[in-house]
Amino acid sequence: MTDVTDDSLRPDDGRVDDAFHVFDTTLRDGAQREGINLTVADKLTIARHLDDFGVGFIEGGWPGANPRDTEFFQRAAEEIDFRHARLVAFGATRKAGVRAEDDPQVAALLDSGAPVITLVAKSHDRHVELALRTTLDENLAMVRDTVAYLRERGRRVFVDCEHFFDGYRANPDYAVRVVRAAHEAGADVVVLCDTNGGMLPAQVEAVVRAVLGATGARLGIHAQDDTGCAVANTLAAVDGGATHVQCTANGYGERVGNANLFPVVAALELKCGRTVLPAGALAEMTRISHAIAEVVNLTPSTHQPYVGVSAFAHKAGLHASAIKVDPDLYQHIAPEAVGNTMRMLVSDMAGRASIELKGKELGVDLGGDRELVGRVVERVKERELAGYTYEAADASFELLLRQEVEGRARRYYRVESWRAIVEDRPDGTHANEATVKLWAKGERIVATAEGNGPVDALDRALRVALERIYPQLAELELVDYKVRILEGRLGTGSITRVLVSTSDGRNEWSTVGVAENVIAASWQALDDAYAYGLRRAGVEPQE
Amino acid sequence: MTDVTDDSLRPDDGRVDDAFHVFDTTLRDGAQREGINLTVADKLTIARHLDDFGVGFIEGGWPGANPRDTEFFQRAAEEIDFRHARLVAFGATRKAGVRAEDDPQVAALLDSGAPVITLVAKSHDRHVELALRTTLDENLAMVRDTVAYLRERGRRVFVDCEHFFDGYRANPDYAVRVVRAAHEAGADVVVLCDTNGGMLPAQVEAVVRAVLGATGARLGIHAQDDTGCAVANTLAAVDGGATHVQCTANGYGERVGNANLFPVVAALELKCGRTVLPAGALAEMTRISHAIAEVVNLTPSTHQPYVGVSAFAHKAGLHASAIKVDPDLYQHIAPEAVGNTMRMLVSDMAGRASIELKGKELGVDLGGDRELVGRVVERVKERELAGYTYEAADASFELLLRQEVEGRARRYYRVESWRAIVEDRPDGTHANEATVKLWAKGERIVATAEGNGPVDALDRALRVALERIYPQLAELELVDYKVRILEGRLGTGSITRVLVSTSDGRNEWSTVGVAENVIAASWQALDDAYAYGLRRAGVEPQE
Repeated sequence: MTDVTDDSLRPDDGRVDDAFHVFDTTLRDGAQREGINLTVADKLTIARHLDDFGVGFIEGGWPGANPRDTEFFQRAAEEIDFRHARLVAFGATRKAGVRAEDDPQVAALLDSGAPVITLVAKSHDRHVELALRTTLDENLAMVRDTVAYLRERGRRVFVDCEHFFDGYRANPDYAVRVVRAAHEAGADVVVLCDTNGGMLPAQVEAVVRAVLGATGARLGIHAQDDTGCAVANTLAAVDGGATHVQCTANGYGERVGNANLFPVVAALELKCGRTVLPAGALAEMTRISHAIAEVVNLTPSTHQPYVGVSAFAHKAGLHASAIKVDPDLYQHIAPEAVGNTMRMLVSDMAGRASIELKGKELGVDLGGDRELVGRVVERVKERELAGYTYEAADASFELLLRQEVEGRARRYYRVESWRAIVEDRPDGTHANEATVKLWAKGERIVATAEGNGPVDALDRALRVALERIYPQLAELELVDYKVRILEGRLGTGSITRVLVSTSDGRNEWSTVGVAENVIAASWQALDDAYAYGLRRAGVEPQE
Repeated sequence: MTDVTDDSLRPDDGRVDDAFHVFDTTLRDGAQREGINLTVADKLTIARHLDDFGVGFIEGGWPGANPRDTEFFQRAAEEIDFRHARLVAFGATRKAGVRAEDDPQVAALLDSGAPVITLVAKSHDRHVELALRTTLDENLAMVRDTVAYLRERGRRVFVDCEHFFDGYRANPDYAVRVVRAAHEAGADVVVLCDTNGGMLPAQVEAVVRAVLGATGARLGIHAQDDTGCAVANTLAAVDGGATHVQCTANGYGERVGNANLFPVVAALELKCGRTVLPAGALAEMTRISHAIAEVVNLTPSTHQPYVGVSAFAHKAGLHASAIKVDPDLYQHIAPEAVGNTMRMLVSDMAGRASIELKGKELGVDLGGDRELVGRVVERVKERELAGYTYEAADASFELLLRQEVEGRARRYYRVESWRAIVEDRPDGTHANEATVKLWAKGERIVATAEGNGPVDALDRALRVALERIYPQLAELELVDYKVRILEGRLGTGSITRVLVSTSDGRNEWSTVGVAENVIAASWQALDDAYAYGLRRAGVEPQE
């Protein structure tokens, strides 16, 4: 057990102003989200991203409570040179009837070497009685003793008052006494937690204001999103006087989730005039949000505020010309401020202006060629009438655009025919087999493959046929596949639209196929996906 | 063009109190969400769900602006008997320099037959100049004239002030003049729109309060979620005096989305003491949220407040015993209030109580047979874990239930095997052929048919095989077909779920199939659809 000197209490040591904290708890509370299961390596990677982003504090876990968190603190101390953040260990106040110095759980917090410790404390009288099974007075003593003990050992201490808002409603007097006990014992911040997440902003602001008035303690806020108001509740607490905000990346957390770090920070920086990040960090927000989603293995939400791919997507049509004149009239912030970009969605409402904007975005110069732009608009309209959608299939749109610009499609092979067979056998298993017949590099190739479905079998047969001529195809991977039946009231005779996402390990693109049946539509989308991927890889067509 | 009398202005006609409105715009603004593309049939289905839920108003679209919306209003008037909601047509104020009675767009609004019309109006001076390209005074006249004209024709009129909050910041005087113009011309509600979605709750409340004081107009709020605060902004506007709230189901909408109907209504009902729904409707919220997600073909968000499957999911462990003693200590509301359930473990979807209720609903007496109910619960859990969903497939659920009650499945035929072939021919056309081999009435039957897709071909082959033995099949028609890829990050190798709706001309039912490929999944859903249809027609199995 090493004591650390309390460097962190000193004014600015190169970090963002300590008077207002952003405290990230992705690695502790965020990891409670159903479906997230982090390894120590995952936690280290996320900690690096959060430090890059420049949060003030990173709560790493509960050392002593599980071996993974203990290991995380050891390795973080050795492997990460934090530039902006301070590492925080989470734990509980001492057990009832035990001295703080004799409680092994408290000892593990000191052992972690973390300079800052967050202690969770009960502040709702019924929880003290029912969950802790001790007296209200002993709970106060537990808070006081544990804070004082850790302060004596040189640690900075934050206290999370669990279920504070519900507790304040049930017994405001006792809830305030817990805050006062923590404050008087030397806690630097007392965090009011809406653990069950049921609060609305006006309530949060009023309670924070009242507790601040009653105690004079420095207050923080921890909001859960059960009413869909966690971001607003966090900002309301700041309005009420809180100067420490707890969040998680992408709002990960138990049940609905926690206050989402990214919209909270963006609102504080861009709308409330507070500097909470190092210079330049906000523009990294979109990248960091997506990177963390990759680490926890969840698809980034396309509709997340500020950082989702849809966050600055406009259905052009009507307003495209006005957007060209003054985009700020149609967006609440410049997307570049948070590292995102405006996207014009190509749809049948699309006029000439949006096609030109889209061309510019894709780096295809339409050079004000009115006739060319008109031709593209016509093609898009005609195809969208047939069921295609280019707003969700950028790569197919780019192929269409380049075909019009270059006067012809660049083809990597010419398909003669293909066939897919699905067979249900008497034993209940299925056989899926596909054959493709095509020409590439002047050669006729016939290939057959099996798969776990007819589309998979076709995909494999195509790869078998082409692998020799285009070895680059091996890098392409199908990562998403969506089917939509159009004019669904017509039964299975309707039109089928397939959207395919493909990745080369660095980038991802989407293509679309439309046909009277799902197999043929899938084939088209695959065909576009490979044409786009090969073009992107710089491969010359050898039809 | 028919004039309608303004019934809706009369006090309570069996609907929820008119003094506070919930106004749903899923079908208009919600449909702007990237990836949503609704057919008329989809819109009618969603309108029925929203009416069941009991919103006060359903904005159906922009008649005249596109043929689909025009058709929707025609068919809604013929096909839906609204019990709670009033249908609203959306449109724009008259064009600059044209009389309202001469503007075809305004005429289309009257032609729609909708008793209520929402007019969008510019209230931001720069937008008037740049997007409308007219003068500030003409814009005021456009608002005044169009409202007055529609009022004279007996319509109730709401006015959406687009970009209101940004406009109010730029030129508060002009923004207020637009509100006043609409109000004085007879608009029933003037809706302040945060079109770019950049506001925070405290700003919204202050502006609503100020505009209410300056104009005395009845105010509404339309919030977009770009700051992640749309729900809170909506509630802040209500605190500021707004009595009309615009929302969309599941928060669908452009960019990040709109204020989410479900958390807004739940907060109003459960936390703000306002009655905005008919009795019992709130308990249907989870079901309705998921049903609408199915119609728009988006996976319901697992982490949506109140209605997500994770919204009341607890990692048991630590607090399990305390939760058993007093669950209210660990949840902000009783999940049953919104039709959701507390979950202690992953995959505990179906409870005993809901199975018994469902049995009663289907007329299957489970007679309090605990062991039987337990068996059904187990079967449902196991199947839902495998990807089935019975929420959207009543008929498949009923077959499962009856099979457990009767101890065996009643089968109309026994399938030996089937095969589907899709062939792309050199001329670009496709051949789809299917063969089924089955036993019915002691006879082995082999039939082959062609179709316009592999599923259609299978459907036809099955009908050819069985038409002699079960002529009733001729009455059954496939009316809807939906495909959803589960675990979509795995590419075409993932699990496919197919939902089929079948009609016998009087009733419609839905069945589900799940398999590793779309053809096999479709086969299962068809198989269930015919078994259910034949049973319903009173046909005895002759396997």
